[in-house]
Amino acid sequence: MIEDQLKAVIRDIPDFPKPGIVFKDITPLLQHSELVELAVQEFARRLENIEFDVIAGIESRGFLFGFLLAQYMKKPFIPIRKQGKLPYHTVSESYKLEYGQATIEMHEDAFPKGTKVLLHDDLLATGGTVVAASKLIEKVGGSVAGYTFVISLDFLQSAGRLTRFNENIISLVGYQ
Amino acid sequence: MIEDQLKAVIRDIPDFPKPGIVFKDITPLLQHSELVELAVQEFARRLENIEFDVIAGIESRGFLFGFLLAQYMKKPFIPIRKQGKLPYHTVSESYKLEYGQATIEMHEDAFPKGTKVLLHDDLLATGGTVVAASKLIEKVGGSVAGYTFVISLDFLQSAGRLTRFNENIISLVGYQ
Repeated sequence: MIEDQLKAVIRDIPDFPKPGIVFKDITPLLQHSELVELAVQEFARRLENIEFDVIAGIESRGFLFGFLLAQYMKKPFIPIRKQGKLPYHTVSESYKLEYGQATIEMHEDAFPKGTKVLLHDDLLATGGTVVAASKLIEKVGGSVAGYTFVISLDFLQSAGRLTRFNENIISLVGYQ
Repeated sequence: MIEDQLKAVIRDIPDFPKPGIVFKDITPLLQHSELVELAVQEFARRLENIEFDVIAGIESRGFLFGFLLAQYMKKPFIPIRKQGKLPYHTVSESYKLEYGQATIEMHEDAFPKGTKVLLHDDLLATGGTVVAASKLIEKVGGSVAGYTFVISLDFLQSAGRLTRFNENIISLVGYQ
């Protein structure tokens, strides 16, 4: 089963980025091209009945599987980036971090109004970044068609923050 | 010809990130999946006679074509990231920017000694980041097998800074 195969190569890093947090490290997975291919195929299989026009990926780890999946499904890829990184006119959205705040941006001409956007990130934790990215998509007249994550930290129970945008939430590996 | 096709979708953004600089924006290219596929095939064709074991990509835009090319060629992918982003033990290398400095890191167990590494970034400008990444690769006992860039700003004449690591420098689009 793909979830077990993925769990076997995802690495636990205790106390990163700070004491008490166990970080799920996908860098070993990136070395297994056959398993990466299986993961992309599994995303595509679960997306079969979901209609969408483009895939947006959140900087920077969301660029990895996001762009790969977009190419696999022959869809345009839209990068959502940290503040100040995108060169053209942007829309931006800020969100709270534990200490302070962060801002993400998307090009204002990233897609036409009415576009159905599949949103990808490598990991769903508290959902703060993904909620902000969903708002960005709606800000330029698009709609969220669903979400894909390699990993979801289900014990944080963040999926409920996303269902108001769309209930299609696909995650290959869940941690309870 | 692939270079002309790519130039047709790469967008000039004047005065980004600061006055007087014309930024080459690849985000429109990411929306053309057929052209992206052609670009990856072209990289692979030009790499036919170059022996390498893994592909390393530099955060964040180097994650896009770097990971795609790694999957296309069934090679492991190694992320090189900005300071503080990689969760496991890292090696790091600092380099000068116009004002101040930047530091990039790689996991110290990214690959075994003797590994031949193809280094990828989206754009070769002054070469500062790429030189630092090349030093990182040598620091852990690997060697640079070559370089791939989507774009090279040839008028900056930076390729000469890379040849001491390896003379295989592949760029799909050059600006004179």
